[in-house]
Amino acid sequence: MSKINVALLGYGTVGKGVYSTIESHQNRLQRLLGKEVKVVAILVRNLEKHVAPDDQVLLTANFEDILSLSDLHIVIDAIVGREPGFTYLKKAIDKGCHIVTANKEMFAFHGTELQTLALEKGVGLGYEATVAGGIPIIQTIRQLLQVNHFQKIEAILNGTSNFILTNMRKLGSTFAETLQLAKENGYAESDPTNDIEGYDALYKGMVMSQLIYGELPCIDSVKRKGITHIQPQHMKVAEEAGLRFKHVVALSKSNDEIQCKVEPVLVTDSHPFYQVEGVQNSVSITTDLLGTLQLQGPGAGMFPTASAVLEDIIQLENKPKASPAAKNSVTDQDTLLQWVIFCEYPEIEKSGQEISVIEKLDDTTWIIEGEVIPSGLSHSSSTNIFPLKGRYERKKLPLQV
Amino acid sequence: MSKINVALLGYGTVGKGVYSTIESHQNRLQRLLGKEVKVVAILVRNLEKHVAPDDQVLLTANFEDILSLSDLHIVIDAIVGREPGFTYLKKAIDKGCHIVTANKEMFAFHGTELQTLALEKGVGLGYEATVAGGIPIIQTIRQLLQVNHFQKIEAILNGTSNFILTNMRKLGSTFAETLQLAKENGYAESDPTNDIEGYDALYKGMVMSQLIYGELPCIDSVKRKGITHIQPQHMKVAEEAGLRFKHVVALSKSNDEIQCKVEPVLVTDSHPFYQVEGVQNSVSITTDLLGTLQLQGPGAGMFPTASAVLEDIIQLENKPKASPAAKNSVTDQDTLLQWVIFCEYPEIEKSGQEISVIEKLDDTTWIIEGEVIPSGLSHSSSTNIFPLKGRYERKKLPLQV
Repeated sequence: MSKINVALLGYGTVGKGVYSTIESHQNRLQRLLGKEVKVVAILVRNLEKHVAPDDQVLLTANFEDILSLSDLHIVIDAIVGREPGFTYLKKAIDKGCHIVTANKEMFAFHGTELQTLALEKGVGLGYEATVAGGIPIIQTIRQLLQVNHFQKIEAILNGTSNFILTNMRKLGSTFAETLQLAKENGYAESDPTNDIEGYDALYKGMVMSQLIYGELPCIDSVKRKGITHIQPQHMKVAEEAGLRFKHVVALSKSNDEIQCKVEPVLVTDSHPFYQVEGVQNSVSITTDLLGTLQLQGPGAGMFPTASAVLEDIIQLENKPKASPAAKNSVTDQDTLLQWVIFCEYPEIEKSGQEISVIEKLDDTTWIIEGEVIPSGLSHSSSTNIFPLKGRYERKKLPLQV
Repeated sequence: MSKINVALLGYGTVGKGVYSTIESHQNRLQRLLGKEVKVVAILVRNLEKHVAPDDQVLLTANFEDILSLSDLHIVIDAIVGREPGFTYLKKAIDKGCHIVTANKEMFAFHGTELQTLALEKGVGLGYEATVAGGIPIIQTIRQLLQVNHFQKIEAILNGTSNFILTNMRKLGSTFAETLQLAKENGYAESDPTNDIEGYDALYKGMVMSQLIYGELPCIDSVKRKGITHIQPQHMKVAEEAGLRFKHVVALSKSNDEIQCKVEPVLVTDSHPFYQVEGVQNSVSITTDLLGTLQLQGPGAGMFPTASAVLEDIIQLENKPKASPAAKNSVTDQDTLLQWVIFCEYPEIEKSGQEISVIEKLDDTTWIIEGEVIPSGLSHSSSTNIFPLKGRYERKKLPLQV
């Protein structure tokens, strides 16, 4: 039986998961592809920290060893960071290899260029694992919703921040205490900045922007706000009002400008994100024909990520195509009617909309009505709730954005 | 520009939605397919009740007129019932046309045969619209989860019954009153039997069984129970316990036997179906690698259904394939830990498991612990709740299944 030879860049959690799943699912891969799938080489940074999983696998710290392999068909990128991943993948494409990547930061910044290169070379490029772990959101958009026009994407794409928000509410603990809990459970890295400040979620939003709109959002229209400022008293007020904090990526296009926002928002119990808890991810897609489709599942982990990589291999081998989809979305108003917004008073001052108070919940929290677009949050909603510092008066606020 | 000529069988809600969407999305279809998509003929039952949407469309009540068209590429089945749909589609396949069907009852019973015929003739067969409206569940299973082994499918697949259950709870109304409300809102047909007795949901479960396991469930392992026996007092007890009724299709395979059950169950607020409300559909798939993936969206309607049909056309034209997937699922124990079960006392008598009472909620309702598989329900769970008629004693019940 002929073989599909694979090189694996990186042998951490993702790399090991991919290797062991190729082994455990070999019969199934052979049945689907008609060929054996064989990992022939693994690239690691430090040879002394790793052992090759079997004698026939080349373990190397030198990428040139990978490039010099004859009959190499697929390179799987399971390392992190923009470099050296980008350089490696450019060289692998140039060699004529299909590419499958799980490297979201690299792909957020260099995805379009890699897709162009892959198209020129006639090789396939899979990146399902860069967004939402095993949830097949990339291929759903690429393949299954080709006729539909995209109007809006909203998503919870970072398991760490959702774990922290979930457990701050459940345990009544502070942000710092809950972050520590996340670290102890293996859900946060020693430097958690990427997750808790929304960079990781933004990278995933950038990948989806290139897929749906064919380009990155304009840097001026990107808003990124972390969850580190959320305090137990915010949680308490939200819970009393029947609301939950979620760290949401929102992607849309209006007036030819792609907008990408990452920020904590409050949702009511009728919102589909209300019970997306712990390390779960969820993606809500609104299109012209289908309406709103929500996909939910594990956003990370060894085997969900391996699932995304292996399913990409099947797609590549069955029909390589690397063109950016550029789904040519319908633009429309940002109307998140069930959404509720949290912000602090100084931010409202900058918003400049006329709003009216419906109900005062406590000294710092009011339900208001009106088109409110606080700076740094900018969802509009017919009914919004947020804690205010000090007394709120109904008035036309000066626009200072 | 060359054309893709389409015949439409049926010109009701689904047929009209497909026709108008092909018109409205013509530019997009041409960009995706490189060809114009043109509806050249529409089959109706009664010519006097319909008008052709434009002069160039043949409106006919005679299927032979469709068959005698030269250069016909795709036949879209938007009629209901096993016949004449099955006969028409067999003839269309024999003529060499690709097939796209929205006819769930016909496809539930004749899907395997049609797929075999399509494979023999080398034509494509799309049936996304037969299950869960616009939610791309069929293509997700067929294409995007090929490496994954399926362990379990649970789904809410009938919008009418979910609308009734949702509104019985919200309004405190009887089944009959709420059914009337569903009719007034266009969510129930004049004869609602198929929806409220679970036949419609069972048909969709049968379609998924053929897709995932390559065959229908054994008739003896099919359980179908409607929602007509649920009364306001059941709703009240459930709500007080923080539970909601959902009419769920469960599909799994153990010991080489495919099991398909359609029945009302109670779910806790941590279960993903808890907030699937109104006419929404939701499908939860559990696989070995990915874990549990949930898809949720509109399960019916003119444009969601048209979305499924048009996306199928794209898939057909890009790569016709008609083989049953036969995903060779992993079998495992039925362990729905978060699930809670409703049944009446006579059914428990047949179950034959040792269970213990944790808490008495009221005279007819208890929380119990143990592996309980009541006849006609048969989910197991570590904690179950159901209304009992009469006093419940802890004892080994005789197995009479």
